[in-house]
Amino acid sequence: MALLNENYLKLKAGYLFPEIGRRVRAFGDANPAAAGRLIRCGIGDVTEPLPAAVVAALHRAVEEMGVRETFRGYGPEQGYEWLRATIAQNDFRARGVEVADDEIFVSDGSKCDCGGILDVLGAKNKIAISDPVYPVYVDTNVMAGHTGPADETGAYAKLVYLPCRPANGFIPVPPKRPVDVIYLCSPNNPTGAAATREQLTAWVQYALAHRAVILFDAAYEAYITDPALPHSIYEIPGARECAIEFRSFSKNGGFTGLRCAFTVVPKTFLARTAAGEYQPLHPLWMRRMTTKFNGVAYIVQRAAEALYSPEGRTEVQALIAHYLGNAEVLRAGAKQAGLKVFGGVNAPYLWVRTPKGVTSWEAFDRLLTQAQVVITPGSGFGSRGEGYFRISAFNSRAKVAEVAERLQELKW
Amino acid sequence: MALLNENYLKLKAGYLFPEIGRRVRAFGDANPAAAGRLIRCGIGDVTEPLPAAVVAALHRAVEEMGVRETFRGYGPEQGYEWLRATIAQNDFRARGVEVADDEIFVSDGSKCDCGGILDVLGAKNKIAISDPVYPVYVDTNVMAGHTGPADETGAYAKLVYLPCRPANGFIPVPPKRPVDVIYLCSPNNPTGAAATREQLTAWVQYALAHRAVILFDAAYEAYITDPALPHSIYEIPGARECAIEFRSFSKNGGFTGLRCAFTVVPKTFLARTAAGEYQPLHPLWMRRMTTKFNGVAYIVQRAAEALYSPEGRTEVQALIAHYLGNAEVLRAGAKQAGLKVFGGVNAPYLWVRTPKGVTSWEAFDRLLTQAQVVITPGSGFGSRGEGYFRISAFNSRAKVAEVAERLQELKW
Repeated sequence: MALLNENYLKLKAGYLFPEIGRRVRAFGDANPAAAGRLIRCGIGDVTEPLPAAVVAALHRAVEEMGVRETFRGYGPEQGYEWLRATIAQNDFRARGVEVADDEIFVSDGSKCDCGGILDVLGAKNKIAISDPVYPVYVDTNVMAGHTGPADETGAYAKLVYLPCRPANGFIPVPPKRPVDVIYLCSPNNPTGAAATREQLTAWVQYALAHRAVILFDAAYEAYITDPALPHSIYEIPGARECAIEFRSFSKNGGFTGLRCAFTVVPKTFLARTAAGEYQPLHPLWMRRMTTKFNGVAYIVQRAAEALYSPEGRTEVQALIAHYLGNAEVLRAGAKQAGLKVFGGVNAPYLWVRTPKGVTSWEAFDRLLTQAQVVITPGSGFGSRGEGYFRISAFNSRAKVAEVAERLQELKW
Repeated sequence: MALLNENYLKLKAGYLFPEIGRRVRAFGDANPAAAGRLIRCGIGDVTEPLPAAVVAALHRAVEEMGVRETFRGYGPEQGYEWLRATIAQNDFRARGVEVADDEIFVSDGSKCDCGGILDVLGAKNKIAISDPVYPVYVDTNVMAGHTGPADETGAYAKLVYLPCRPANGFIPVPPKRPVDVIYLCSPNNPTGAAATREQLTAWVQYALAHRAVILFDAAYEAYITDPALPHSIYEIPGARECAIEFRSFSKNGGFTGLRCAFTVVPKTFLARTAAGEYQPLHPLWMRRMTTKFNGVAYIVQRAAEALYSPEGRTEVQALIAHYLGNAEVLRAGAKQAGLKVFGGVNAPYLWVRTPKGVTSWEAFDRLLTQAQVVITPGSGFGSRGEGYFRISAFNSRAKVAEVAERLQELKW
């Protein structure tokens, strides 16, 4: 009798974004006239086209694939050497950060890697996550059986939730109790907060002291504007002994529909067996990638490489400037409307306090029905996201300006 | 203290193909003159360029991605509706097989899906695999903790091995004992055997009787030449209640370097909870895909769609005819050299008996050192692959003809 994985049955019904989609469709069906005015600032999906350097690289690579002499079949599962070297050199060594080419694993998405990394970690780790948090960290742990059931607030038993509040700048502080696996995301989705060097240093010191691992999600690294803020966890001494870093081309190169990311697994990071022996995780991750993955399309790896060309860099900078300019317009608009706003400076997300007495989903419904603006309710990211909503700056400037205006007319 | 997944430490050192690569490199380093003569018939990777219809579709889709109005960001994780509908209609319903559009899940590879499917199955299933077998089925179960350690023959405790021999046409027969999960691959990698309707019917009846699940890998379906052979497990009555099917565009469209595949999960297939309740696996797989995967690149999905156009179909047929023509040349050559040959008629693989007293790896070394031909040793696919080797027909006709000639000169 084939048994199913009952951990899946613990998952709260509906991932956040499907529920948003359902409400938006219901509104559109009931109000076909107003539906045309909809502006989506909910999901964190880019809106601008691929950079010209990427388009050109894709066309060239497609041509190669159409000719026998230059056709490429299976590539190395962990990525072509030229791309791994380009990444390690430009994103790390050129910035004074030690990362070897073969510590870079190219993949089809940070979401996939954030889930996949649990494959190589043990089943009995104590897991710490921020609250609010990107739901994938939680859900993948539920699926893997690392939690108990959820309570009425949506919090799962056995997980250690680290509260993120205005008082700590929405960056969690290390807990008193020992934990084994720590998810950190900076710049943060959903709050837009970016961790300082001091904050990350405290976490690295905690992880080294407890021999814990930090799973550091730096998918929004390109949005950091403050020169004092670290772009990589490996800028912190000791991080190579305790941290795995996830990066993505989704939000800098606009690759959400093209799918390319990478994960850094330092060969110097050791994890423990039940018998107390320490072994590097690097060969386990290599084995996982070569056995359960077959590499990213050659043409997409060439596209990622093009982001590092002089033209590609200029175009990426223009994309980032565009989205951060949007964030500034939204920040000004939200403030003018009397709302308390966080984030949006080193990140493409604004984290907005709902007016007193208004829940996150109520704010969602009011923005949808009164202003036809789709945002993401903060409570969808965890119980401590209640009382907030996230506005995404991924849009055209005209639409963002329109959203800023509509915010002024809201009746709370 | 971060614990690692110790199941990985049970894995036998080195996946098959890295070991082949190591021996080939060592030979090349020691014999630089002979290395230039190397012909690779080892790994099952296509050699011919992408069909023109695919190249054209890729260029068009790349253009769309470079223009704001037609740019696509995140798509549905389970695949665009137009591709799912195209697949369900052409590969199934047009052949009289009932499969709904939303039972198709588009992914970046069958290897990924074969590993991923274990996520939604329980930890205590009894797993049956063929011997010899595609190593990914075994290794992903080892990683997931479904086995004990390996013995000296490489067989893992707790797995049920189903012997494939000339006597059963290399298609395993259902065991007497009950098992919960059954891997079947037809046309088979590595043996090239294709299951008959009667053989699959016996398996479906067994699975229904034991409420087991058949994981049916049909990656080589396009190579079936015998009109009496089923192309899909769903041609067998009852299979919608007990089978999941894996398909790939790697070996028909030549997508090994482009990455696109799909998995069929019928909504009518139910799996059991520990409490004895039966639930459909479909929503679990949907949740798995939306949480741990972010969809296949838009441009690659357009490429897959192009395989179903009139031009695409003609070009795929030409590719299949080319590789099957190669298989025929190799079959004739191997037979003329006095070797006993199986497969190569409904599959791009030949399964060749080594001469008496010669092991699989000895055959590998002789073919490498005497003839500079790289094959895959049968023992790499399981203990009952000992005494065989696999020749892949993926190559140019000229190279394949050269291999057939060199086989005549071998000194065993």
